[in-house]
Amino acid sequence: MGAREMRPTTIAADYKETVHLAMQAVEDAMNDVVNSEVTVLRDASRHILAAGGKRIRPRMLMLTYLALGGTDLEYAAPPAAAVELMHTASVVHDDINDHGVLRRGRPSVNAIWGRTFALLTGDFLFTAVYQLLAPYKDLNIVLARAATALVEGETLQAVAVKENNFTRETYARIIGLKTAALFQASAEMGALLAGAAPAQVAALAQFGYNIGLAFQIVDDILDIIGDETVLGKTAGIDIDQGRGLASVTDAPQGVSDVMESIKKKMLTGDRLNQGREQAESLVSMAIAQLDVLPDSPAKDELIALAEFAIRRNH
Amino acid sequence: MGAREMRPTTIAADYKETVHLAMQAVEDAMNDVVNSEVTVLRDASRHILAAGGKRIRPRMLMLTYLALGGTDLEYAAPPAAAVELMHTASVVHDDINDHGVLRRGRPSVNAIWGRTFALLTGDFLFTAVYQLLAPYKDLNIVLARAATALVEGETLQAVAVKENNFTRETYARIIGLKTAALFQASAEMGALLAGAAPAQVAALAQFGYNIGLAFQIVDDILDIIGDETVLGKTAGIDIDQGRGLASVTDAPQGVSDVMESIKKKMLTGDRLNQGREQAESLVSMAIAQLDVLPDSPAKDELIALAEFAIRRNH
Repeated sequence: MGAREMRPTTIAADYKETVHLAMQAVEDAMNDVVNSEVTVLRDASRHILAAGGKRIRPRMLMLTYLALGGTDLEYAAPPAAAVELMHTASVVHDDINDHGVLRRGRPSVNAIWGRTFALLTGDFLFTAVYQLLAPYKDLNIVLARAATALVEGETLQAVAVKENNFTRETYARIIGLKTAALFQASAEMGALLAGAAPAQVAALAQFGYNIGLAFQIVDDILDIIGDETVLGKTAGIDIDQGRGLASVTDAPQGVSDVMESIKKKMLTGDRLNQGREQAESLVSMAIAQLDVLPDSPAKDELIALAEFAIRRNH
Repeated sequence: MGAREMRPTTIAADYKETVHLAMQAVEDAMNDVVNSEVTVLRDASRHILAAGGKRIRPRMLMLTYLALGGTDLEYAAPPAAAVELMHTASVVHDDINDHGVLRRGRPSVNAIWGRTFALLTGDFLFTAVYQLLAPYKDLNIVLARAATALVEGETLQAVAVKENNFTRETYARIIGLKTAALFQASAEMGALLAGAAPAQVAALAQFGYNIGLAFQIVDDILDIIGDETVLGKTAGIDIDQGRGLASVTDAPQGVSDVMESIKKKMLTGDRLNQGREQAESLVSMAIAQLDVLPDSPAKDELIALAEFAIRRNH
């Protein structure tokens, strides 16, 4: 284990180019599967996809696959596209419930097409996930579990907001379900696609789970910092998330505003620092799991991805 | 082919009891999979399931399986539960978009839990479908296709309502996608689970598709007749569908009302009779497809199911 020479020879000398090709294959798979004859579904899906996003989940899947010796980008791309579309479907429905008017710096699907079509677009994206993964046999069990967890997490969050009962334990449970489960599934599927040994699959699953927790904690911290900037000085910082701006426009009072105030209560002052420290600690534990991987440029990229999860400013 | 003796000997002498056990296994599979630790998802799912419904899709799957020699009810029940939950998920989301306040004679999920939780319950049911079917390998491709068709059909309907452009061709396309595709998948999966020959699978798929078309045409006819009764005399007849009543209560003006007026334009007088004749003809063609089956009590039940699709009054 461990020698850089172990990486598959089909991977180009220019490793950045391989990753670029991998992520391009994911984009293609996503755009293909949403190519419905029903115009509004195709247009709304491509609108939200074209807005970008970090693509951190599919990137994690592809890098895990490459780091474990996988070489067939076309084979791994559809499952990677599926996890991104699963996330995208939940984002589209989330914006309906939160009355979000901006998403990734562009008008949300409901802002342009209205709630009825936004609801249907989210449903359509769910079925696109299913279409993409259906041929992959056992992977379906992994993603189905994560999909249920995601919806359960979103629901627990809505319940906590409604009941104004947002303890530290509730928060931990929510982010485990709504975010970490899909990150876990991404890394796990990448490992399974590469035919990894069970111990490697388990370690990568744990890697994904911890990165998912850290990612969400940092996301919530950035949300709060962004909001403070927006409310105190100028709008724009939190444009990526949409919620910050929504709460100062004349959008109807929604879950979003209540959520913001709860997040503020949860994560201010010392708690904000505690959150950052916890995220750092989770990422360190995650990186330790990568000992099951031989050294390779893909492993280095996975470490960089782990660090990006906490060192980003958007 | 054709001898009644060919039916599997494990099927009880009392055939009605076998069908009863089959459908009980489907109920159990549905109730198990929605048993989330997130109370609101479990309660809302069981609320809509307990309200009943005809269970015509899972019944078609189980009968097809039995008619082709299948004997393992526990094996066939989860896919049958999956098609019913797929239908149920779409019904829950449909009631959000239509502002439906009644469904199957009970308050709709959105009427009790509100739109946010109704949206999440529908999403949860979609993921439950996925959980149920994930272990069934190739069947996932069949259901994924039907799931996408269903959402496309619902979307085309919403577009047609919005644009007030409801031609006969549009109507045919909509009911093919939103209803017939899932009926087709139900019969097809029953045949695949029984290990049927390709020609039998194809014939059963066609059977399901045609029954689905006929079922939806009759549904729309019953809807109109129900509405006329409701509007002209008294509320209650169309309670099963929910829409009739919704349109005369003080529910917000929604897609539902526009849809009713369009259906009325489409299916009045002669057109209503033409619709009935078309449904009759589709059912005859469907029953002809059953020639690929040996005679058996299950085949007789499939014929009865086909006739029920058009001879019902609710």
